[in-house]
Amino acid sequence: MIKTDILIIGAGPTGLFTVFEAGLLKLKCHLIDALPQAGGQCAEIYPKKPIYDIPGFPEVLAGDLVDNLMEQIKSFEPGFTLGERAETIEKLEDGNFIVTTNRGTQHTAPVVAIAGGLGSFEPRRPPIQNISSFEDKGVAYIIRDPEVYRDKKVVIAGGGDSALDWSIFLANVASEVTLVHRRNEFRGALDSVEKVQELKNEGKIQLITPGEVTALFGSEQLYGLEVTKTDGESVYIETDHFIPLFGLAPKLGPIANWGLEIEKNAIKVDTFDYQTNVPGIYAIGDVNTYPGKLKLILCGFHEATLMCQSAYQRIFPDKKYVMKYTTVSGVSGFDGTNKQAPKPTIKAIV
Amino acid sequence: MIKTDILIIGAGPTGLFTVFEAGLLKLKCHLIDALPQAGGQCAEIYPKKPIYDIPGFPEVLAGDLVDNLMEQIKSFEPGFTLGERAETIEKLEDGNFIVTTNRGTQHTAPVVAIAGGLGSFEPRRPPIQNISSFEDKGVAYIIRDPEVYRDKKVVIAGGGDSALDWSIFLANVASEVTLVHRRNEFRGALDSVEKVQELKNEGKIQLITPGEVTALFGSEQLYGLEVTKTDGESVYIETDHFIPLFGLAPKLGPIANWGLEIEKNAIKVDTFDYQTNVPGIYAIGDVNTYPGKLKLILCGFHEATLMCQSAYQRIFPDKKYVMKYTTVSGVSGFDGTNKQAPKPTIKAIV
Repeated sequence: MIKTDILIIGAGPTGLFTVFEAGLLKLKCHLIDALPQAGGQCAEIYPKKPIYDIPGFPEVLAGDLVDNLMEQIKSFEPGFTLGERAETIEKLEDGNFIVTTNRGTQHTAPVVAIAGGLGSFEPRRPPIQNISSFEDKGVAYIIRDPEVYRDKKVVIAGGGDSALDWSIFLANVASEVTLVHRRNEFRGALDSVEKVQELKNEGKIQLITPGEVTALFGSEQLYGLEVTKTDGESVYIETDHFIPLFGLAPKLGPIANWGLEIEKNAIKVDTFDYQTNVPGIYAIGDVNTYPGKLKLILCGFHEATLMCQSAYQRIFPDKKYVMKYTTVSGVSGFDGTNKQAPKPTIKAIV
Repeated sequence: MIKTDILIIGAGPTGLFTVFEAGLLKLKCHLIDALPQAGGQCAEIYPKKPIYDIPGFPEVLAGDLVDNLMEQIKSFEPGFTLGERAETIEKLEDGNFIVTTNRGTQHTAPVVAIAGGLGSFEPRRPPIQNISSFEDKGVAYIIRDPEVYRDKKVVIAGGGDSALDWSIFLANVASEVTLVHRRNEFRGALDSVEKVQELKNEGKIQLITPGEVTALFGSEQLYGLEVTKTDGESVYIETDHFIPLFGLAPKLGPIANWGLEIEKNAIKVDTFDYQTNVPGIYAIGDVNTYPGKLKLILCGFHEATLMCQSAYQRIFPDKKYVMKYTTVSGVSGFDGTNKQAPKPTIKAIV
């Protein structure tokens, strides 16, 4: 059982900054995220995209913002449970919560902060009838370990950067790579489009466009699939793996069943401290809603900050915390580091 | 008469970021500040001090944060009335406001956003009976133009960085510099303390410590003053100028008389849109108060953002604004510039 002060569901920018504000109050944090790395959408969906509305940054790449936040919270030593989805929550009689992930990892804390963004990102599945029965038996929506595909036959479907980039990468790993897309036009970085063209010319990638995978065949394991071209012609392709890369779509997921008041796919909170209808469970960032709510990263930062003050009061009902300014008091990390403005010299002139 | 969409009182970080959020909504801003430059406290009081709690900046000097914000808002071409204090406000029948400064400059706008921080910074005056009668007649609390002191006799009082730095600077400008401080110890950058010691040894600065200026003499113009040392001895010093540098202290000032609900020296607002009890006047950043309020720069950024949405509705009651993400829509400046994420290539592979 992982124990912490504030258990944060979601390791996007809002969840990460919560670690900092909690740390100033000497509260420890642990983060759970369904994605395999911290940063949420910023790291997974658009790390190379510039954001223009983070205060103080005329322009910052989403991935760099995440790196900066990780650096900012480092000394508060947050714990992470990554690649696992928070599945169930239970409130104990002593007021603590237990949150269990889809892989059975258990966490306990007196405060839970849901910073789940638009939800956990689930792959978009193509509408092929029996596709779910082949998951983990040849069908995968996310490539976790490319070595799985060494010397295997692979069919990739999709027309964006993921489909292009993985086709290029696997061309040198797999024994055969077939790329299927329902249009002739691909949409991605110019480099990637040109590289796929080149690999196709060299015969290292088979291209089938415009077309779609329409049926999967196999028993224990996938062994082939049918591609139907737009002109109606069907071809059978022998393959070990089918990887549809149609992007990720957010889903509120199991959190929707935690007994929280939900409105338009978001969790209702009070603007005093961003607490939900269940005392001790807060919701901050894009996952929450209140009158006037804007789904902006900078608003999540503010919400995280106010929420931490309330969490402190909940954990230490008898202590009175007086907010200290970092410009005055500096930042004392849990790792023993101490950041502090240089002190002026006090010296007699004689 | 200066006309704008949102008239911002206070050009600190919150006021500056308001220009950005307003700009995204195509609203123009003009800022009034009593200090001679933008940036508020960050620029005037602690430009070289690191701040650790701005999200995404593990450490940023206050002055650099201001520079970044100025860069971020540049393309929205804000107007500035600096070195003047907003004095009176009048609401016209058509719903517009007129704000007049202490120097008589008039501004009109349908929305006023008070981002006044802790108030306008007023110099701390030493308790010398007739000091106010010598203001502008030899006594000054802020040095605006050092040339005024060329070849004159100057007495500076204070023991901090301002007193040290100006003594050093004026040692080469004025004919005589006397530095008076009530302790032997000075508190400032080591360099400055050592430099004053050196100039004192060379006879370029006269030092009187520990002591205080206790009386001023003159008729039309200051011509001398009395310094009383801690041991009780008094000396008379002939001088043209007396510059007490005891720091600045914030005062809510004339805004306190604008008919706004005030609580503990701050303006009460609704957290829906940070509007005051007077429709059309908003208060954001350190100057406002509401349940749970924290006087942090990052909270001011959030408040500015929500406030701009409400201001837009007030100015265009019939238009429905749909918030756009800068990652998607980019930023179109009023100066014709356009910042935008690079678009993906769409290209056929044949």
